[in-house]
Amino acid sequence: MQLASFNYQGVDRIGIRRNDTQIVAIDDLPGLKPGALATMMDLIELGPAATEQVRQAVTNAKQKEIIAIEDIDWRPPIPNPGKIIGVAMNNSASNARKISAPDHPAFFLKPASCLIGHLESIRVRAYYGSLHPEPELAVIIGKEARGINAVDAMEYVYGYSNFNDITGNGMRADDLFHYWALYSSDEDPDKLERREQHLSYAARYKGTDTFGCMGPWLVTADEIPDPDNLDVRCSVGSESIAEDSTRYYNYKLAEIISYVSQFLTLMPGDIISCGTAFKPSPGRKSIHHANLQIVSGPVEVSIDGLGTLENPVTIDDKPIGRWRLPTQDTKTEET
Amino acid sequence: MQLASFNYQGVDRIGIRRNDTQIVAIDDLPGLKPGALATMMDLIELGPAATEQVRQAVTNAKQKEIIAIEDIDWRPPIPNPGKIIGVAMNNSASNARKISAPDHPAFFLKPASCLIGHLESIRVRAYYGSLHPEPELAVIIGKEARGINAVDAMEYVYGYSNFNDITGNGMRADDLFHYWALYSSDEDPDKLERREQHLSYAARYKGTDTFGCMGPWLVTADEIPDPDNLDVRCSVGSESIAEDSTRYYNYKLAEIISYVSQFLTLMPGDIISCGTAFKPSPGRKSIHHANLQIVSGPVEVSIDGLGTLENPVTIDDKPIGRWRLPTQDTKTEET
Repeated sequence: MQLASFNYQGVDRIGIRRNDTQIVAIDDLPGLKPGALATMMDLIELGPAATEQVRQAVTNAKQKEIIAIEDIDWRPPIPNPGKIIGVAMNNSASNARKISAPDHPAFFLKPASCLIGHLESIRVRAYYGSLHPEPELAVIIGKEARGINAVDAMEYVYGYSNFNDITGNGMRADDLFHYWALYSSDEDPDKLERREQHLSYAARYKGTDTFGCMGPWLVTADEIPDPDNLDVRCSVGSESIAEDSTRYYNYKLAEIISYVSQFLTLMPGDIISCGTAFKPSPGRKSIHHANLQIVSGPVEVSIDGLGTLENPVTIDDKPIGRWRLPTQDTKTEET
Repeated sequence: MQLASFNYQGVDRIGIRRNDTQIVAIDDLPGLKPGALATMMDLIELGPAATEQVRQAVTNAKQKEIIAIEDIDWRPPIPNPGKIIGVAMNNSASNARKISAPDHPAFFLKPASCLIGHLESIRVRAYYGSLHPEPELAVIIGKEARGINAVDAMEYVYGYSNFNDITGNGMRADDLFHYWALYSSDEDPDKLERREQHLSYAARYKGTDTFGCMGPWLVTADEIPDPDNLDVRCSVGSESIAEDSTRYYNYKLAEIISYVSQFLTLMPGDIISCGTAFKPSPGRKSIHHANLQIVSGPVEVSIDGLGTLENPVTIDDKPIGRWRLPTQDTKTEET
């Protein structure tokens, strides 16, 4: 089942794919109170019975519930997830470049405010520095998961989507700290010792507006029997920049979900983007060549069974706002 | 005005402080449709007129709308913010330990799922490693802000709250990558060059469940005329571990809000925790001594005008779940 969030005639709605050209709206199912099923989050939270009811909607669709795909504006499948988790450096192709690394999945967060849907524009500002696409498989969580074991983890999956984890590698190189961290001494907890540490912060380079492209569809889990073995393709303009597969992820999806749940409780509608598939295309172009400040879009991400996510790129030359306050000499004199 | 989110007799509600012992419920204001004002997010999104109406509720309160504070369970003031931003190393007291650092605010995200309210427990699991409290001033955004200048930024503030940005410094030391990053060459964009880079990922050490304590109150901006000059105190058990002030932040609040808005659009209800006030207490104990695996709680954070946020600490010895899948020999043979 391929589900979508979209805007139609000024109203945000949800629907199910009927065929190549039509969607059946599913926000007015019989038996539900008006307004109870307005968003994809509602559908997921209503549980499996509601999803099963939606499945019937395609065959039972009355004419008035059918909407032409060409008439909609796509929205990200889940516009307001509780959290979006990205798994860092989860591709075995990057292992040879690791000097040292954790022995478990490491992850960062992206904010809901960075999400855009299919055909929405990636808006690049000149002051962002270089940035590139990262094609990834996104998992959508179906029910609350806390401290679950890997063997049970796939039961918590609602579905999947294409995800383009736009990454500002220029900003990434800027938001680094090299410093002396203070730790309580192992020998004497009352004493502090300094440890040299490198830290970096991802909220800007991973979380800037439009840096999370997702869609077009949320495909339910039943349609993707082996998510750990899906081909992933990415192109910019007409040029292929990645041909890879989720089978080269270091950690299986079940391991990622289980590991995260040992620390962060996963909630219905939460999204985990499982890591970048970045094996260069046969033409040897890679995502690292695709600086969106220079290379013209659109950017396409296409994973087996999930359709093709396409986003144009627009560049804005407006300079950064005046984020520094004027020097306040009088204030300084106050001591 | 001091606002609260709380659970009373099994129902999540919002209210305004009437005095030391009473709250006036504000989720049934006249003139609003039923259900239109159910959460703090609703109140903020309804805009200044609704907040002004709430202000009148204290004097106009009927007996039935008054709830005894001792009868409530506190919730975080905003249980489901769109995003929580933390500013990294924003205290001038840490500057001497920086070998290199950005020349602008750097920030990370915490998920809504990590939030707890006043008197809720910080739940520590033995496998988290060491962790400590970080007392901070949290700003709550009142209206959408994108690309705003610092001189205008304070107009976008709805209010403030105490924030305890619990930090797993043990996990922090684990989630580091030292690796060769690939960048497009400056001379020839078609060529890639390797650059040695240290990256770290904060979602686990900053985002684990209960790592975001907030409250008790959301205090509206009018009550805090100079948020850049507030004393901050923190204690664990009965011992003081920080006596500091927001005047030692490297960046003024207006600069932080403006800077973030150049990249991430801020939405009503978004939270920015502005950085750790960690100057040690006169007894020389600091937050870095307060490993919550060892030191007994409760943890208190108290900022001028915002009341005192108190959270007990509970430790759970349950081991980490089995997040690795069993080795799948048959699967490997499939090639």
